[in-house]
Order: sequence, then C-alpha cells, then structure tokens
Amino acid sequence: MKQHAIAIHGGAGTILRSAMTPEKEQSYKKGLEDAILAGDKILAAGGDALDAVEAAIRSLEDNPLFNAGKGAVFTHEGKNEMDASIMQGKDLMAGAVTGISNIRNPITLAKTVMQKSEHVFLSGLGAMEFAEKNKLQFEPDEYFFVQMRYDQLLSARESDRIVMDHTDKLENGEKKFGTVGAVALDVHGNLAAGTSTGGMTNKKMGRIGDTPIIGAGTYANNNTCAISCTGHGEFFIRSVVAYDVSCLMEYKGLSLKEACEIVVNQKLVKIGGEGGLIALDAKGNIELPFNSEGMYRAMKKSGSDMYIGIYKD
Amino acid sequence: MKQHAIAIHGGAGTILRSAMTPEKEQSYKKGLEDAILAGDKILAAGGDALDAVEAAIRSLEDNPLFNAGKGAVFTHEGKNEMDASIMQGKDLMAGAVTGISNIRNPITLAKTVMQKSEHVFLSGLGAMEFAEKNKLQFEPDEYFFVQMRYDQLLSARESDRIVMDHTDKLENGEKKFGTVGAVALDVHGNLAAGTSTGGMTNKKMGRIGDTPIIGAGTYANNNTCAISCTGHGEFFIRSVVAYDVSCLMEYKGLSLKEACEIVVNQKLVKIGGEGGLIALDAKGNIELPFNSEGMYRAMKKSGSDMYIGIYKD
Repeated sequence: MKQHAIAIHGGAGTILRSAMTPEKEQSYKKGLEDAILAGDKILAAGGDALDAVEAAIRSLEDNPLFNAGKGAVFTHEGKNEMDASIMQGKDLMAGAVTGISNIRNPITLAKTVMQKSEHVFLSGLGAMEFAEKNKLQFEPDEYFFVQMRYDQLLSARESDRIVMDHTDKLENGEKKFGTVGAVALDVHGNLAAGTSTGGMTNKKMGRIGDTPIIGAGTYANNNTCAISCTGHGEFFIRSVVAYDVSCLMEYKGLSLKEACEIVVNQKLVKIGGEGGLIALDAKGNIELPFNSEGMYRAMKKSGSDMYIGIYKD
Repeated sequence: MKQHAIAIHGGAGTILRSAMTPEKEQSYKKGLEDAILAGDKILAAGGDALDAVEAAIRSLEDNPLFNAGKGAVFTHEGKNEMDASIMQGKDLMAGAVTGISNIRNPITLAKTVMQKSEHVFLSGLGAMEFAEKNKLQFEPDEYFFVQMRYDQLLSARESDRIVMDHTDKLENGEKKFGTVGAVALDVHGNLAAGTSTGGMTNKKMGRIGDTPIIGAGTYANNNTCAISCTGHGEFFIRSVVAYDVSCLMEYKGLSLKEACEIVVNQKLVKIGGEGGLIALDAKGNIELPFNSEGMYRAMKKSGSDMYIGIYKD
C-alpha cells in the first residue's frame, strides 16, 4: 500500500502566545484535529485526494473559529462574501468561485464548478445560480452571523481600517489572515489542493484576494506539488505564489523545502507579503512555511502521528 | 537612447482567409495600426511602458471590431460584462477588474485599481463604485450596443451554444477568442502588459476567464518578459500561461522564443487549450505565437517598420 498524507491550515498572522487563553488554544487545536481526521479517514480508505481536501475544508468551514464558511468575516456593507478554489494534480482540472453568499460550503461549490460546469471560475450571482441548479446547501444569513465577527466589523468600521482576519484586539495591531486550506496525497499518487476564505473584515465590496485564483492561492500538479496559501492576498496574487513553488521544483530542480524557503521567506518577504502556505509533494514530503508570527496548521502522514502547530516553534 | 518596442493582439481563433473580405481585412489592419501607433508614440517620447500599454488597449477598446470596451459581446442575459488587467514589471504592481459594465475603458480602470487602491483585484459593483469615485468615463448601454454583437447573441441563444468571440458564421464553426492586449518595453528598460475582454457571447453570467487573472492572462517582470494572452480562458487559467513563460525563462534559462514554443505549441496543445499570446522580453525580443488558425496581431520596434498579421503566414 502506498503512503498517503494530508496537511491543512486555518490562517496565518500575528498569533501571539501571550494573547491566547488555554481554552481558546484548545478549541483551535480541536478544530484542526477534526479537519485533519475528516480528510485522513478518506485517504486511509483509499479515497481520492480531491475528496479528502474537500472534507477537511468543509470541517473548517463549518467551524466558526475559522474565517471561511460559517465563520466568514463581514465586509464593509455588513455582508459575508466568500471565495474558494480547488485543483487536482492528475489532469490540472480546477474550479473556483468568488463573491458568493449563503452557501454553507464554498469548497464544495468550487468542486462542483470543476466537475459539472464548462467553466473554471464563476462569480457572484452567476455562481449562486449555478449552486442552486446543482442543489448546493444554502444557509440563511443567521447561520453566518457570528457575534465575534460582527463586533470586529463595528470596531473596524469605527477606525475605517481593513482587518485581515478574525482579529479581536485591533488596538494591539494583531493581524490574522483568515483563510483555510488543505493539500492531500492519496494512495493512487494523486495530489489535490483547496482553499476557502471569508475575506477581510471591513473590506470594500468586490475585493478578490488570492484564495480563488488558480496559481496564486491554490495549485496542484502530480509532477510537482499541491499548495494552499494564506496571507495578504494582494502580494500573493502579484507573486503567483502557489505556481511559483511548483515552477521552482519543475524547472529549477529544487526540493519542496528549498522552493518553499525561496518563495515564502525570500521573495514574499522582499515585497512585504506576509503569510504562509502548506505544501505537499508527490513523495509525501510536507512543508508548512510562514513568515508571520504564527499559522494555524496541522499534518498527518500514513503511519505517523498528527502534528498540530500554531506559533513559531 | 535605448530601444523601445510594443506588440498588440486583437484576439485569436479560426480566422480564415476564405471567410474575409478585402474591406473587412483592411478595417482590422487599420484598427491594429491605430493601436500600435497610439502606444508607440508614447514610447518614442520617452514615456512609460505602462502608459503605452494603456493607450494601445484603449484604442482597441474604442474600436467596435474587437471584443473589448465598445465591441464587447453580450452575455446570455443580454448584458456586457467586461474584464481587464494590467501589470508593470519594475515592481510587480498590478491591477485587475472583472464583471464590470458601462465603463468605456476597462484597462484604465485596472490601471487605476493598481495605482489608487490598496487592492489588486476588484469585481462587479465594488469595482463600479471605485470607478465612479475615481471619475472613470462611463457610457450608456447604447454605446456598447453593436448590432453585429447582438445578432451573434440571438444566434447563439437559439443554438444554446457558447461562442468564444465575434463569430459571425456560427454554422461553419468559426471560433474567435475575443480579447485585446498589449505588451511594451520603454526606453527606461521597463516592461508592462495588459489585457481586456468583453468575454464570451452567450456565456452564463459571472464566468471569469483568464483575462483579469495576473499570472494567467497577464504578467510582467523586468527580469524576464511581459505577456498578454488570448484564447480559451479556462485552459489558460489551469496552465497559469503568462507566468509559465516567465518561469521557463527565469528558472530554466530558456529564451523568450523557446519558452513561448513550449507553453503555446506544446503544453497548451496537449490539454486542448486553443489560443495564443504576445510576448516581449527586456532585450526587446518579440514573439507572437498561437496554436489557432489565426491571431490579430501587430508589433513595432524603435527604428523598424510595423508588422501586422492576421493568419498563419
């Protein structure tokens, strides 16, 4: 039996041990563990990397702690606008959605776009219409109304600042890049990657970050690696981050570790792009690099224990 | 004085000599010539590559022959939904818009997003609001109403087919990928690239192609090249086409010509991705590869005559 592996993230940013309570830390770890197990279960049963990625991300989307699905932050207008994308490495098929509301699991909509539409990328009302036609699960506004998120919006509106994530202490400049993502390798040797986000608190309507952009926030190719990013999206778009890791491996012959080091700790740092990514290659190597204070992250390889991390170790 | 150079495209696809009249061919050539001259004038005066790209694309957007700006095709709902993106190679700054209507020059809106917003990519109503605030030129629906385009929609609706561009002979399967784009090198050694489109006739609302996606439809980096693509967008997104050319040069040491050959005539062909691109490197080399029957294209280097092409030579 060939090995399988999965890694996930729940956002990066200024996540400080000093600002965390043991209870809060425990609930984040539990959320990461649940998501890893949801994906690992599928992989262990011989399932597809694509389905494992979807399952892990659905678990994170259903958890109000993470900025995606139920926990999506509020835009300036007080709405939730969510983005997601997914890609499979065996045939470079991909699906993505942007500017959607009231969809319980945006990652499942992205997967449905990939599998059932002739397009790769759908936005707004067109994406919603497609979701309805394909019987995706909708939820009322109240489902997405998490009091903490709404308080963040009010606080951000007062200061007219854009907040990168579920920051609950604006005054000390804490930054979090609220995205969730997963990468997986199945026993058939296939890689997949997916990313989902609720965007930035207080963002102007219509801003699209790197999350739904194939090549920037998400990329998978069986010849190289699967990547899911989290960070200050504008810098990740301009740097085509996910595909850059893949190209450094394919064209320059670098290892996954070397490619991640160059992209996250050299190139992104040089232009001021804060954040990180999760990366998995076809041999089952995993890298979880970030240039911010912390990144919610976890990984599990077949036959190994789970690793869960939040801060810089 | 250092050299300067510019290249443009007005879409690729099944453009057959047999289906063209001399008058029609002349008007396309005139449109390409006007656009090249608009950009070349700025470059010859020592202006910025970014401004030359914008001027050339504005000229194509104002011409009803090309599927961008005034000549944008109609969606399934009978609306014009336009996309555009622009990038400059000196600092990797970029701007992009998707799903906008009634903006006379989408490329100028993309440039304004790059220069005056904290975001890279704006969509729909949010992009329109930003345009209004920044006093972009709006036009009424009638400005975009080109009878030929509307007839195309009616014809496509009847057959319920999606048409890739300003196809006027559906019955013979003619395909055109309606996008316009420009790449420029200025005397200061800076590269820039831009792309603009009116999308696909009869497309479902909300479909986003490669045009507004940095890395897929547009990319510029002074260390490598400037690229603008035109083709079946879904394949260009999955292949991260524009950045792929850049990576093959930077990481594998290929020439612009070699990189274009691999991406357009090998990789894209392998997955069925029809179309082409225009490419310009920091030394002033220009490539105009396409794997379709034809591509409206033109180029001019300082001190050389203009080249204009439509079919495979």
